[in-house]
Amino acid sequence: MTAPVYDFRSDNVGGAAPELLEALVTANAGTASPYGDDDHTRAMNARFTAAFERPVTALPVSSGTGSNAVALAALANPYGSIYCHESAHINVYECGAPEFYTGAKLVALPGRDYKLHADELDAALSLAGRGNPTRVQPFALNVTQPTDYGTLYRPAEIAALCEIAHAHGLKVHMDGARFANAIAALGCSPADLTWRCGVDALSFGATKNGAMNAEAVVVFDPALAASIPFRMKRGGLVLSKARYVSAQLDRYLADDRWIERARRANEHAARLAAGLGALPGVTIVAPVEINMIFARLPDAAVAALDAGPLRYYKLGREVRFVCRHDQEPEGIAALVDTVRAALGSPAPGRVPLRPG
Amino acid sequence: MTAPVYDFRSDNVGGAAPELLEALVTANAGTASPYGDDDHTRAMNARFTAAFERPVTALPVSSGTGSNAVALAALANPYGSIYCHESAHINVYECGAPEFYTGAKLVALPGRDYKLHADELDAALSLAGRGNPTRVQPFALNVTQPTDYGTLYRPAEIAALCEIAHAHGLKVHMDGARFANAIAALGCSPADLTWRCGVDALSFGATKNGAMNAEAVVVFDPALAASIPFRMKRGGLVLSKARYVSAQLDRYLADDRWIERARRANEHAARLAAGLGALPGVTIVAPVEINMIFARLPDAAVAALDAGPLRYYKLGREVRFVCRHDQEPEGIAALVDTVRAALGSPAPGRVPLRPG
Amino acid sequence: MTAPVYDFRSDNVGGAAPELLEALVTANAGTASPYGDDDHTRAMNARFTAAFERPVTALPVSSGTGSNAVALAALANPYGSIYCHESAHINVYECGAPEFYTGAKLVALPGRDYKLHADELDAALSLAGRGNPTRVQPFALNVTQPTDYGTLYRPAEIAALCEIAHAHGLKVHMDGARFANAIAALGCSPADLTWRCGVDALSFGATKNGAMNAEAVVVFDPALAASIPFRMKRGGLVLSKARYVSAQLDRYLADDRWIERARRANEHAARLAAGLGALPGVTIVAPVEINMIFARLPDAAVAALDAGPLRYYKLGREVRFVCRHDQEPEGIAALVDTVRAALGSPAPGRVPLRPG
Amino acid sequence: MTAPVYDFRSDNVGGAAPELLEALVTANAGTASPYGDDDHTRAMNARFTAAFERPVTALPVSSGTGSNAVALAALANPYGSIYCHESAHINVYECGAPEFYTGAKLVALPGRDYKLHADELDAALSLAGRGNPTRVQPFALNVTQPTDYGTLYRPAEIAALCEIAHAHGLKVHMDGARFANAIAALGCSPADLTWRCGVDALSFGATKNGAMNAEAVVVFDPALAASIPFRMKRGGLVLSKARYVSAQLDRYLADDRWIERARRANEHAARLAAGLGALPGVTIVAPVEINMIFARLPDAAVAALDAGPLRYYKLGREVRFVCRHDQEPEGIAALVDTVRAALGSPAPGRVPLRPG
Repeated sequence: MTAPVYDFRSDNVGGAAPELLEALVTANAGTASPYGDDDHTRAMNARFTAAFERPVTALPVSSGTGSNAVALAALANPYGSIYCHESAHINVYECGAPEFYTGAKLVALPGRDYKLHADELDAALSLAGRGNPTRVQPFALNVTQPTDYGTLYRPAEIAALCEIAHAHGLKVHMDGARFANAIAALGCSPADLTWRCGVDALSFGATKNGAMNAEAVVVFDPALAASIPFRMKRGGLVLSKARYVSAQLDRYLADDRWIERARRANEHAARLAAGLGALPGVTIVAPVEINMIFARLPDAAVAALDAGPLRYYKLGREVRFVCRHDQEPEGIAALVDTVRAALGSPAPGRVPLRPG
Repeated sequence: MTAPVYDFRSDNVGGAAPELLEALVTANAGTASPYGDDDHTRAMNARFTAAFERPVTALPVSSGTGSNAVALAALANPYGSIYCHESAHINVYECGAPEFYTGAKLVALPGRDYKLHADELDAALSLAGRGNPTRVQPFALNVTQPTDYGTLYRPAEIAALCEIAHAHGLKVHMDGARFANAIAALGCSPADLTWRCGVDALSFGATKNGAMNAEAVVVFDPALAASIPFRMKRGGLVLSKARYVSAQLDRYLADDRWIERARRANEHAARLAAGLGALPGVTIVAPVEINMIFARLPDAAVAALDAGPLRYYKLGREVRFVCRHDQEPEGIAALVDTVRAALGSPAPGRVPLRPG
Repeated sequence: MTAPVYDFRSDNVGGAAPELLEALVTANAGTASPYGDDDHTRAMNARFTAAFERPVTALPVSSGTGSNAVALAALANPYGSIYCHESAHINVYECGAPEFYTGAKLVALPGRDYKLHADELDAALSLAGRGNPTRVQPFALNVTQPTDYGTLYRPAEIAALCEIAHAHGLKVHMDGARFANAIAALGCSPADLTWRCGVDALSFGATKNGAMNAEAVVVFDPALAASIPFRMKRGGLVLSKARYVSAQLDRYLADDRWIERARRANEHAARLAAGLGALPGVTIVAPVEINMIFARLPDAAVAALDAGPLRYYKLGREVRFVCRHDQEPEGIAALVDTVRAALGSPAPGRVPLRPG
Repeated sequence: MTAPVYDFRSDNVGGAAPELLEALVTANAGTASPYGDDDHTRAMNARFTAAFERPVTALPVSSGTGSNAVALAALANPYGSIYCHESAHINVYECGAPEFYTGAKLVALPGRDYKLHADELDAALSLAGRGNPTRVQPFALNVTQPTDYGTLYRPAEIAALCEIAHAHGLKVHMDGARFANAIAALGCSPADLTWRCGVDALSFGATKNGAMNAEAVVVFDPALAASIPFRMKRGGLVLSKARYVSAQLDRYLADDRWIERARRANEHAARLAAGLGALPGVTIVAPVEINMIFARLPDAAVAALDAGPLRYYKLGREVRFVCRHDQEPEGIAALVDTVRAALGSPAPGRVPLRPG
């Protein structure tokens, strides 16, 4: 019998939540108009409108990168720049998709806790050379919430960033690939975290929280939405049978299971962080606020992890562990135990690694 | 009780075939590596290699437009042109996606039966200005098989086009959105219709023949495939959970059901064409070789169709009827009857509209 | 002593007019702000405003292709199409520059006398699929005046095209690489040939009529001009020392010499066409309205031309002769004599080839 | 009588050197093939081949931004990245032109003295994710020599950077907008500063050193040059009458005047830096190695400069003074005197501001 493989690589290695799979199967009956002109997509739009407490336009797409790129393109001028944190997903892990769709340059700023800060953004924008034809002209701010290092912006922080951005003539895009984890952690409503702070467009991610390649571009200003269907088609992002994505998203927001899943994932990570953080020689790199842990481990611990059945990612000199809602508690214990054993630490007395 | 709606709009209005839905549900178990680095995608590649009788690279995507665009981009130079028929899907119905991904210009040629012809292609390429920096430089030929008007190239026709294309330094891309219908109608193997004729890359469509947003970019030359993952990511076409597409495609090719479905769809169309074509005043515009019928109808017939529960598309001055494998025979009869009644024709004696 | 080379290849093989060279030398004194923020560029703008009888924005560039591309980009949406004649310079001889700058697709229409016709344009635009996301969305009409075959639109024809274009939501760009030849031939004012007909932006060419790489993008609506400096810079089209182009253009429009040069070139071509057209076996392909002649010649005549010191272009199966303002009368006579001799014709009695 | 305006804004505010203007006037005689297929362009190529001591391909362009963009595009893959210093001209002052032509992302590194350093480049490239489709793939290194802050790379520094770049699979582009100033300051040959260090392509600037919008793309590997004419045409960078640029460049390299001009400009800057640097409260920001001075000045000094007839640029919190070869010595004295007076310093005893 082989040892179980505990998988901490990413939240996109997991399967689909049962009710989303069921929604997809149900949506399979009968014929439906193609390209998003179908009843499931209309129902999904009504659902987003309810969830966000205002009329929104929501477009189904099957990739987060596509969602980000097309949302940014809808905000763009073709000789412009997008401001973002240097660790932003759009800057590091999308192989240039935002640049491809927008024609713009990403201006990547540093910032404590992997976040942008309003005063630093203001200073950077003040030097951008607005109106000078030798300089790219800023048109958008990207806020990655949560950040790619698992840190969170508070609503007031987002509002401050949006205020600066708008004052400088920029629109604001939120990359919400892990939007559910932010909602679960902060305990605020989707509206409170987005348009009430000034966000103009949101890439609403569901894939990392139990959906099957289901994401939505959510636009709070109808005028901004007008060009998106064309931009999507031009990028090959329009789905012939959009109902299969829309039906999932409609079901996703139908009750609170999406938030509960995210909450469980966050809790698993908190437990794992507590376990790892108590070990000598382990440095937790970023505040653990959602379901991701970034750490620096002694070489012996890395070697021990690499020898076993646990799976995780190395990113440069750091390791990353991501917890899913359906993460096995045994996996969390096994991970901590493996690192502890490699470091020669005694077993802990006070950190309950197994959920009660 | 409402009248049933018979839907002849397109083959993408239908649902998924049972075994493909089942394959998707099965693939949902456990964790899987993201972005196509998973066992389902590897199995799918082995399946394509078997089906095409040679090693191929097959990449899962969720849209046919994306598949076409990225395949063409892999063949491209950035100051080039793609030759295609003026009715080609890439030229008319993809909102500029091929141009967006390749940076190229589409050179659209006329041609009898909505097909390119080798001698006319040769003549056009001879005037292209190879080496002249004021002229775009041809790099690819697009063959849409079947054409968007439902006509078919015979293997010898494709081979002749490929020979001309290669002689002029072009690579050949086949848009096979309805590849199954061509295979079913021509009775030849996938290999005989593609690389044995000289095709370099194929957009293999499954969505219009019973899959859920499942297409494959199939490349016959490994060197051409190397850049595709990067181009896909840059276009937002890489699927986070690619297994759901790959599992469908793996199952799709596992037996002959995909060909049987296409054959049924083709047969439905033949029956419908026979019924319509026998009516006075109805002109069938293009040879009906697969599951699509293009016709010109008297105004009275169009008005009658628009009044009823039948659904179909108008394209300019023509009407289009597309048959699916699961098209209801009653629908076919109803369509012919509606047109006949509008035209005041007597009921037919010799055309059996209902399958025996 | 070698035979003189008579050069009929193009109007861009000639040198600069004396007064333009002088203007450039004069502009060399002192320092000047770079990138077009200089007094010569301001004076040039005032000159264009006077010449066109309304406030315009004129931007100096050094290539006609750049001028066309950037003007079209200022009119563009990024998922759009530009309508033009299939023989248009932007469609055939700019290596994809308009597509590169605009991201758009060129929709090339046929048309008698190498011209677009209002009714045909209306029909094509009616089938363009406005609002359908699978179709590129038309945003601009390109009118090449004179055409690349040397034919001319009358003001009423341009007005009719503009009316159709505007009714369908398109802006109108005129490619005026040989604008002077049109003005000289039609005897109307710059205003009458452009904005009074509804033209929104003009690529004003001077290089083919005696300037040194001096062209202007002329925009009749200030709102359209706002993005052009950025688009030019992004394309590498902003000149560090713009004064050298602006000073030429300022001088170019200072008196009527630009029109007189063009008139002389047109007259040379009329004389040449009369001589050639009188020969049996010579077919003049397009009406000769400016300084260009397109003809089909018997093989013997082509062989004779190729043997001699005369220079000209072959374009596919046709030959092209372009006359410059400073074309030597002996060259025109030599050309006709060469063809006549090759065809075995007697010397003419009634066509005076040498100007009196 | 008005006070003379001393202009320290940039080296592109000056006029053309007499021999270059003369070369242009001489080139005006007779007809010449368009688009760079002319004798002047061929002679210019021979001249560059001699000056660089190996066969090179040199293409005439009229803007440095165009030259940089097209050279980088010739080195590019379309899903890639270009490494450069964060202060590089291509990163800050070209409105996204390199991104536009290449489709690539610029990865901007910090670095002491506004220069890249081989060990830091190596570290950055090691983290670039070669082969990972979520990451842009590096293809080129840009070395701006001299830097935009007037600092210089020694040949050994360039060689070390090229070695790292090539080891990681990158080609190397040198932006030599002020190449002459580097040659004059370092006293080495063009070959020693470029291909002998491993540079693959050079943007050779002449405009800032006495030419009229005359630059050359110089490529040391013929295979890399093949696509450039097409890329240039597509960008509107091909000159209809290229002879006027080529003739200047041919003359430019015909003797050592280009180096002498640059040397004089460098010497003026050294004198100005000595004068300013001796004043209390003045901070020279970067080592003054060519003809540019970056400084931080007390507010009073800035106010005094802004009140007078002196012209210069403010860049963020710094001021920039650029000296031309024909800078008036009185201007240098006036600048130092103005700052000194504003700061209340006594007149200097030991720094001879006026040349002997």
